[in-house]
Amino acid sequence: MPNYIFWDIASISEWDIFEDRRALRSAGIHLKVVQGIDWNPNIWSPSIVLNGGYEDDQDLGDEIIYTGEGGNDPSTNKQIDNQSWEATGNKALLVSELHWLPVRVTRGYKNKSQYSPASGYKYGGLYFITDHFEQKGRNGFTICRFRLQKMSDLDLTGPGTPNVLTAWSEESKRVQTTILRIVRDTRLSREIKELYDFTCQICWIKISVRNIKYAEAAHIKPLWKPHNWKDKSDNLLCLCPNHHVMFDKGMFAISDNLMLIGIEGTLNMDKWHILDTENLRYHNEHIFINH
Amino acid sequence: MPNYIFWDIASISEWDIFEDRRALRSAGIHLKVVQGIDWNPNIWSPSIVLNGGYEDDQDLGDEIIYTGEGGNDPSTNKQIDNQSWEATGNKALLVSELHWLPVRVTRGYKNKSQYSPASGYKYGGLYFITDHFEQKGRNGFTICRFRLQKMSDLDLTGPGTPNVLTAWSEESKRVQTTILRIVRDTRLSREIKELYDFTCQICWIKISVRNIKYAEAAHIKPLWKPHNWKDKSDNLLCLCPNHHVMFDKGMFAISDNLMLIGIEGTLNMDKWHILDTENLRYHNEHIFINH
Repeated sequence: MPNYIFWDIASISEWDIFEDRRALRSAGIHLKVVQGIDWNPNIWSPSIVLNGGYEDDQDLGDEIIYTGEGGNDPSTNKQIDNQSWEATGNKALLVSELHWLPVRVTRGYKNKSQYSPASGYKYGGLYFITDHFEQKGRNGFTICRFRLQKMSDLDLTGPGTPNVLTAWSEESKRVQTTILRIVRDTRLSREIKELYDFTCQICWIKISVRNIKYAEAAHIKPLWKPHNWKDKSDNLLCLCPNHHVMFDKGMFAISDNLMLIGIEGTLNMDKWHILDTENLRYHNEHIFINH
Repeated sequence: MPNYIFWDIASISEWDIFEDRRALRSAGIHLKVVQGIDWNPNIWSPSIVLNGGYEDDQDLGDEIIYTGEGGNDPSTNKQIDNQSWEATGNKALLVSELHWLPVRVTRGYKNKSQYSPASGYKYGGLYFITDHFEQKGRNGFTICRFRLQKMSDLDLTGPGTPNVLTAWSEESKRVQTTILRIVRDTRLSREIKELYDFTCQICWIKISVRNIKYAEAAHIKPLWKPHNWKDKSDNLLCLCPNHHVMFDKGMFAISDNLMLIGIEGTLNMDKWHILDTENLRYHNEHIFINH
């Protein structure tokens, strides 16, 4: 088994400032001295640095829309070519997303946001990558983007729920994390699940106990920014948890004529359920990563 | 399709007090005048009342461990027989759990907690049922228990995440909800997933894109109170999301000799991975609901 390294560094506090990239490297925060995405030999990413290198980055503090690597002119910081999910840094961030590995975030003085330091590099704590998508950037080239959310914002501290996110385990001397998968539930999503009698539209699996059934409603075009879509039945599918994860993470897509792309099988459609072709195309172009 | 009714009542505020059960009924909060668990003809539960009728209830405010119905002597409030998941009220709460339907909670003056009113019945807002389990009660009989968590505690309000839980949709004039599925991730759970190369121990499915794999680590004995178990490898399984939901919701169990109970198939076990028989028995007796 691989030797896991956890990405909290006990001696470093959030908002600590480092003079330059070499100091960041010495502290063990970010080992690469130039690249924004750090990655280790197993191809996953322990750390990113935001420093104004990519014109399309968005830094909202607790949420960051981060541009992947590639196609960038270092002299102007403008995109001059398309990015690819095959680029090692982008692939490493995908691994960190799918395996829920926390990523350290550091902001440099050139990063355009109120959270950046006036000089040097400020450590900003641990984030999870909660989504990825493809987009046309400001200069018209395809960019690979990642949504990072601060760990504390994802914390669940209800009574009786072990608050493991910020708790140190005495046994392992390591921070343990609590992961939240968001499954939205609305009147519409319940109606879609009822329409299919809680049967997955891809694999026909019906998860049930004592005839009480379980399914999930998947959004074709995500609701959150920057996708910003509405909760309408032409944007919803009734899926089992497996196909929900696979669809959300871009492992398969659906064509205009309702054929599955990337996996075998047929999409089961009720005659009363019409999907919006624009939403299918949006998912295909922005979320699906096998093309 | 059924005519859905959402369980927010616009005219009633949290902490409103009602004189008696008839007033609760007139307000539309809880239609049954005696029973603690309300249920409608489709057998799901829009509302419960806590009023000291069951000696095993635990009311922590934002979390409630609620005892199902049956086997109770109304003159002494003591258990005199076992409860069953087949009882209509218990089945209705199971449906509400699996379909993530919000449940109204009202506390009566006889309910033993600091959140109860001195007289009458106080409306306490909407809760989700997040777990169920079987237990021996104070008097030695089997009771069906439900864990309820207040909706606001389950809210996720990160920037960019639509705060749909408390937001009214102008279109539908209904409250929309955000559901969080908790998937814990620790060093140990990552090791278990690596050990099985992210392959489900039940169905051998390996969910992946560009050779980046996705699996979930399931706890055999849950970590939260009242189960209170530790995060050890002998308490973990590597499962796909489908079998994770099924195992957590008690749709199948594993016997002492590692046979599957309730579903077909064989449990795939690595020779280095030993399960604690006590944990398997705990899940079988407390979580599994098919026996």
